[in-house]
Amino acid sequence: MENEKVINNIRGLALDMINNAGSGHPGVVLSAAPILYTLYAKHLRFNIDDDKYFNRDRFILSCGHASALLYATLYMAGFDITLDDLKDFRKIDSKTPGHPELGKTPGVDMTTGPLGQGFATAVGIAMAERKLENDFPNGLFDYYTYVLVSDGDLMEGISYEAASLAGTQRLNKLIVLYDSNNNSLDHSTDITFTEDVKSRFKAQNWDVFEVKNGEDVESIDEAINEAKRSSKPSLIIVNTVLGKYSKYENSNLSHAMQLDDDEITIIKNKLNVRDIAFSVSTEAIETFREQVSLRCSNITQNDEAIINNLTEEQKEYFSYLVINDKSIRNISFNEDIEEEEAPRDTSSKILNRLATDNPYIIGGAADVFLSTKTYINDQGDFTNENRDGKNIFFGVREHLMGAVANGLALCGFRPYVSTFTTFSDYLRPAIRLAAMMKLPVVYILTHDSISIGADGPTHQPIEQLESLRIIPNVEVFRPADANEVIGSYKVIYEKKDSPAVIALSKNKLKVLGNAKINEVVNGAYILNDDGRDLNGVLISSGEDVHLSIEVANRLQKKGLNLRVVSVPCIRRLMELPDKKYDEILPVEKKKIVISTEISGSWNEIIYNPDCLITMSTFGASGSKEDIYKKFGYDIDTLEKKVEELIK
Amino acid sequence: MENEKVINNIRGLALDMINNAGSGHPGVVLSAAPILYTLYAKHLRFNIDDDKYFNRDRFILSCGHASALLYATLYMAGFDITLDDLKDFRKIDSKTPGHPELGKTPGVDMTTGPLGQGFATAVGIAMAERKLENDFPNGLFDYYTYVLVSDGDLMEGISYEAASLAGTQRLNKLIVLYDSNNNSLDHSTDITFTEDVKSRFKAQNWDVFEVKNGEDVESIDEAINEAKRSSKPSLIIVNTVLGKYSKYENSNLSHAMQLDDDEITIIKNKLNVRDIAFSVSTEAIETFREQVSLRCSNITQNDEAIINNLTEEQKEYFSYLVINDKSIRNISFNEDIEEEEAPRDTSSKILNRLATDNPYIIGGAADVFLSTKTYINDQGDFTNENRDGKNIFFGVREHLMGAVANGLALCGFRPYVSTFTTFSDYLRPAIRLAAMMKLPVVYILTHDSISIGADGPTHQPIEQLESLRIIPNVEVFRPADANEVIGSYKVIYEKKDSPAVIALSKNKLKVLGNAKINEVVNGAYILNDDGRDLNGVLISSGEDVHLSIEVANRLQKKGLNLRVVSVPCIRRLMELPDKKYDEILPVEKKKIVISTEISGSWNEIIYNPDCLITMSTFGASGSKEDIYKKFGYDIDTLEKKVEELIK
Repeated sequence: MENEKVINNIRGLALDMINNAGSGHPGVVLSAAPILYTLYAKHLRFNIDDDKYFNRDRFILSCGHASALLYATLYMAGFDITLDDLKDFRKIDSKTPGHPELGKTPGVDMTTGPLGQGFATAVGIAMAERKLENDFPNGLFDYYTYVLVSDGDLMEGISYEAASLAGTQRLNKLIVLYDSNNNSLDHSTDITFTEDVKSRFKAQNWDVFEVKNGEDVESIDEAINEAKRSSKPSLIIVNTVLGKYSKYENSNLSHAMQLDDDEITIIKNKLNVRDIAFSVSTEAIETFREQVSLRCSNITQNDEAIINNLTEEQKEYFSYLVINDKSIRNISFNEDIEEEEAPRDTSSKILNRLATDNPYIIGGAADVFLSTKTYINDQGDFTNENRDGKNIFFGVREHLMGAVANGLALCGFRPYVSTFTTFSDYLRPAIRLAAMMKLPVVYILTHDSISIGADGPTHQPIEQLESLRIIPNVEVFRPADANEVIGSYKVIYEKKDSPAVIALSKNKLKVLGNAKINEVVNGAYILNDDGRDLNGVLISSGEDVHLSIEVANRLQKKGLNLRVVSVPCIRRLMELPDKKYDEILPVEKKKIVISTEISGSWNEIIYNPDCLITMSTFGASGSKEDIYKKFGYDIDTLEKKVEELIK
Repeated sequence: MENEKVINNIRGLALDMINNAGSGHPGVVLSAAPILYTLYAKHLRFNIDDDKYFNRDRFILSCGHASALLYATLYMAGFDITLDDLKDFRKIDSKTPGHPELGKTPGVDMTTGPLGQGFATAVGIAMAERKLENDFPNGLFDYYTYVLVSDGDLMEGISYEAASLAGTQRLNKLIVLYDSNNNSLDHSTDITFTEDVKSRFKAQNWDVFEVKNGEDVESIDEAINEAKRSSKPSLIIVNTVLGKYSKYENSNLSHAMQLDDDEITIIKNKLNVRDIAFSVSTEAIETFREQVSLRCSNITQNDEAIINNLTEEQKEYFSYLVINDKSIRNISFNEDIEEEEAPRDTSSKILNRLATDNPYIIGGAADVFLSTKTYINDQGDFTNENRDGKNIFFGVREHLMGAVANGLALCGFRPYVSTFTTFSDYLRPAIRLAAMMKLPVVYILTHDSISIGADGPTHQPIEQLESLRIIPNVEVFRPADANEVIGSYKVIYEKKDSPAVIALSKNKLKVLGNAKINEVVNGAYILNDDGRDLNGVLISSGEDVHLSIEVANRLQKKGLNLRVVSVPCIRRLMELPDKKYDEILPVEKKKIVISTEISGSWNEIIYNPDCLITMSTFGASGSKEDIYKKFGYDIDTLEKKVEELIK
């Protein structure tokens, strides 16, 4: 009875918000309110005074469109949100945006909206917990990760990837609540989603519990209790009614239905709550907050004592986890560099050192460790049986890998993940969320050009790096040799937040005498210039720099003096002060780009398309030499083209 | 015994190819050869004289890295492939590229390599069959769709999306053969992929058969027979041994192991085949080809008679399906246009007419029919129970939707699919394959700018259209009003191949008096110019054109005469002859872009970054007006900026 009153007040409030905003998703407010209430009132452990407390239970609203329900619940639970904030729902710069956004609202643990992402990110959060529970003593970390998912979340491919790995990893503190209402936006699910969800999750090594009546708080409560006791990740199927109490009850049309005052009155009467907009029962609020207080007020108890007793090493690890500035400035690189070395091999050395020295640097690969060379030696594999391990085997699940990285980053880690450059397409939606949340994830993308050879166009990136460069907050580095790889790592790990891509050639490349570790930060620098009068400038990134050097060397013999500029990061080059930019790329000199990428951002540097020697088609299968020849990147052809352009 | 000989000859040949090429994937050659042999020798119906015969059974090698196995099998089966072609494996411009590529090799039904894509595309091919079987009489279409998948394919999220929809749709002629060898590239699957695949597929409404011993041709044969009789899609789990007979037998290391002559000798001895490179037993070839001939020689029988008896309407439909040039030139548009109309509404009208008039135009939405307005009225829903229907409900499965569209296009349809512009990120890998195969898929992407308002940054595209523009062969159209929507449809459907994107605003927009249907083909045109001396040119696309017009109108009152250029397709503008380009965008005039996209391709037109009024951050939640104001797109701010730039 008490429960019902609080739930219906939440419902009323959330409907008021949607009505006031003129848009939103009332269907899920009406169906899932009892789930969220039960979770926040009876289970979720959080610190109302510090909504980012390190050992709080996490709650991820994977169905981000249920934001009104979440905000209303957070308000009722006592988070730092006012009724005025709720009135500002979906308004500009408010605490209550249309979909949950990290950093905007107290109590919101991640940005959600694109379906499936929340669930998959929660797997990373739950993996982080298993790792931290292992690495720190006395339950300093022992939180649960709860997720609310919709039918839509469970249709997305990434949700199956997530469930599969979570099952294999036995993430027993991951509890997913499924608002099962058999309706998505367009239709009831009977023509789109008929699978047996219970069997599906059982097949993926989950425990599955079912709540027959989604209004029944006791049953939801009991199911969560059972889930907590499980040795596997748990799915709780809560059978609900979309748009309950509305005119579109149990119809897909209630999903995003337009409300009006009359409809609200009818619903509120059924809910037995006062029909005054944004009016909430004080009793309901008090009931809710008392429940929260009883359970959560001691959440920080003992933690200070435990922290004080940590070893120095653990203390440093812990401090990093809870700090916002994720810069790592102590990067040294003492390994020997060969005269010729594949960038992915240099990367392997430095990543090994970084991940070995810093416990919070953790990551893995989507079944291409052997190719991306991102395996950390002597550090073990992170598996169900070994939470000491550092190497995460994601399987062939690039998309999940991206989301898990986001989850790890949300828990304070500095994660890296790796795959071939072309397959970055698979994890793009997760990268976008990392960028939006400014999470310092590092994407190590190897096989970064047509130079990979025989695997052919499906495996040869042409447009991928550019497609990543254009995502706000994402920086892309493409180093030309071992020194630039080191420089790129330095710059990337010194960043205090936001994602970065390091694109690496698989091929052995000469270490360039003049390559400068400390110039990477500027995005570009002069590599090769004997100081005499310049006839022009050749501009390249990554492996392509070696083409420019060869062409410059050849043409020098013909009396043409060409500067070679290496551009490990185009965006940083474009942000240089004019004077510095002009020093590197003099206005009056002819500039030519040689790049195996599409022209993309190079257009910002070169205005004459003839001077852009770039790709405009997909690649081909063949030897590197034959591919270069086919697309005009053999030195003879390049020399001729450049010579003609310069003359 | 006979079978074994053929199989081992295929194995030997494929290993020779890999050894000769110096790279490739021997593990799957050794594990899956009996599966492919059984399929081609005993089941697959094809026309050796016409490998694209419309009613052939399809075979999709979802694990594209098994290309050597496929090519060796195709050679043995009698396709137009020579031993010399096999010797050219992975060499430039050969018939035998590193991964299968549509159009390069007789008998290859699609380009594969990126895992999961083949399986998901096969769902589209199987849906096409159900549709065609329904639409044409007397079994003119009644083919099976077979797929070979690896562990990696089944880990990819898209494979679950594919299986879920295939089960719901009861695609009983889809038969998936699973080379289950418990090893992926990095490791055995025991730390990545422990789910119960049998239960998983059963949960998704599939029939599952299991072959205990992957060497046992009779069992594979029998399982395929059972699968053919099933009323559901079928998965045949074939338990195989990766790298069988090699030194890395049953180890992940056999996946892409380097071969050498000695290792080949050892394996060939075990296989009991001659240890001479590219030497094949004539007897084995004859045995195989005889089996093929017995089964397939009558594949065209009766078809001519059936075709001759088709109605005129059916004949036209049929002709379209089998023709390569997919242009549709008879597009008329007779519906009334309102004075103000949302581009998605105009799109809805024309798409309704197109899909109603042309049976081969078919498509759907990823659970956003109500928002993208791509539902075709009075044409029914394509479901298990109604193959007459045209509207495909993909569920919240954008990635699968992209792959299904590819499958439909591979069967001769002209498919369209739709979602919000931001969520195009989810289907990017499928779009890339469409582009590579030059499939004429139309992506109808609505909610194409920050102007969508309250849903916030996760739903607001900033970089998506540019990320699509840079994929080779993909054309992106962003019409400014109803007339340009019509024009875009005309241009898109007149294309003979290759994918196209049409990006549509959700908002009502004034129909522009001067907007020209027939100018869309040029990519850009002058919208607004009173002929007096120009003070400058404003350039925009889509909804943003209306901002430019308002600014021009305001500044005209201040005596500044600004031309407004609408650019429905940037790439087409860039490809105009110089003279035409200069007419639209005179060299000597100041040009300013107003765009709610990132600067991207606009850099090709405007060299002065100050003149690019574009987005460089993610959007925000709020009303359209407030968002415009926040990011400087309110008319007051724009007017001021433009005025300063022009003066």
